[in-house]
Amino acid sequence: MKKKKRAGPGRPEGNSFARDKILKAAEMAFAEHGYAGTSLREIVKRAHVTQALVTYYFGTKEALFKEIFMCRGREIATKRMQSLKALADGGGRYTLRDVIASYLRPALEMRRTRDGRAFIRLQARMHTEPPRFADRLRREVYDDTVREYLSAIRKVAPQLSDRTAYWRMVLMIGAYLYAHSDAHRLAEVSRGVCDPNDLDEMLEQITAFVVGGLMAPDG
Amino acid sequence: MKKKKRAGPGRPEGNSFARDKILKAAEMAFAEHGYAGTSLREIVKRAHVTQALVTYYFGTKEALFKEIFMCRGREIATKRMQSLKALADGGGRYTLRDVIASYLRPALEMRRTRDGRAFIRLQARMHTEPPRFADRLRREVYDDTVREYLSAIRKVAPQLSDRTAYWRMVLMIGAYLYAHSDAHRLAEVSRGVCDPNDLDEMLEQITAFVVGGLMAPDG
Repeated sequence: MKKKKRAGPGRPEGNSFARDKILKAAEMAFAEHGYAGTSLREIVKRAHVTQALVTYYFGTKEALFKEIFMCRGREIATKRMQSLKALADGGGRYTLRDVIASYLRPALEMRRTRDGRAFIRLQARMHTEPPRFADRLRREVYDDTVREYLSAIRKVAPQLSDRTAYWRMVLMIGAYLYAHSDAHRLAEVSRGVCDPNDLDEMLEQITAFVVGGLMAPDG
Repeated sequence: MKKKKRAGPGRPEGNSFARDKILKAAEMAFAEHGYAGTSLREIVKRAHVTQALVTYYFGTKEALFKEIFMCRGREIATKRMQSLKALADGGGRYTLRDVIASYLRPALEMRRTRDGRAFIRLQARMHTEPPRFADRLRREVYDDTVREYLSAIRKVAPQLSDRTAYWRMVLMIGAYLYAHSDAHRLAEVSRGVCDPNDLDEMLEQITAFVVGGLMAPDG
């Protein structure tokens, strides 16, 4: 009987299917246990691959996390930018409501899939238990978008001071991240009257609230 | 030489000073590493006490966490209730702004001390990485207050539907928790224009935003 060929020290067995499997497993693990609470061993176990394969594709846990965050975050940021550009290209006659809905929609849409929901949860965790490198990563992915939206908002709400515009942008982010990541609380508080899985309703409700908040008298 | 008296199996050396030391150490540890990420061993180390003492006072990690959450949470809830009662006793001529500021102020005031800030952070973590028993605990501490405030809000904003009132209450909670727990993001986004440590400004900004959001047209 021919001796089975041993894997060499170079590239382990693998393909892009395996790579995806690792990314998805890692995304779920990070969403459930946070960055600090997830070990490479846990990811290896979930993905049903070898540790060598994870190391081969991503190197370290930090690199793997960054890959996930950049990829998903950029998807959201790109959609936000496209949607804002579409508004501007439409002759510039857009309302604050259009701007806010454009901002909120991409992250909301991500909730339609199980993996997407895991990412949204992972992202919400980044502000309560930020890994060391979170600030830089978040800036890299989102800051341009936040600035573009701030200037679009100020175009339709020119009465806002600098300070108030920044404050309200951050409060908007807080409100929507919470509605996403802790949907359970809504069901609990409303004793079932509100359905946190109705994404159209969620978009309507957050948009109306945020537009009202942004338009409040300043100071 | 007289043999040193061995501690019996009963009450270890300790006093209420030690008990407080343990509570504070645990609060900091839970805020930094979350519930799952904190071990009793870590708490023992921070508090400079023996594990026996921690076990004597609190039993388990879960019991210790509950003690902290109930104690701080009740402090916030009680102040909210008192402040709402004071509004009602003032002849009932209060505005939505008064109601919202009453709700927000107790948690904001807690930020004035280092321990208080740790609790606010711990509480924010509960929605991104809830321990198993979080829902029940949160309901127990906060649900009565949330209901009282909902009915006060609806008294001054009777145009809101049930569904919208619940949604907006939850969005308010999200906005303020985020502003508290991720104050860093505000400094980052505003490039230093906003000061997240100015508590009066924080109360003003969140109140104005939330009042605007609550008063937005419904549906």
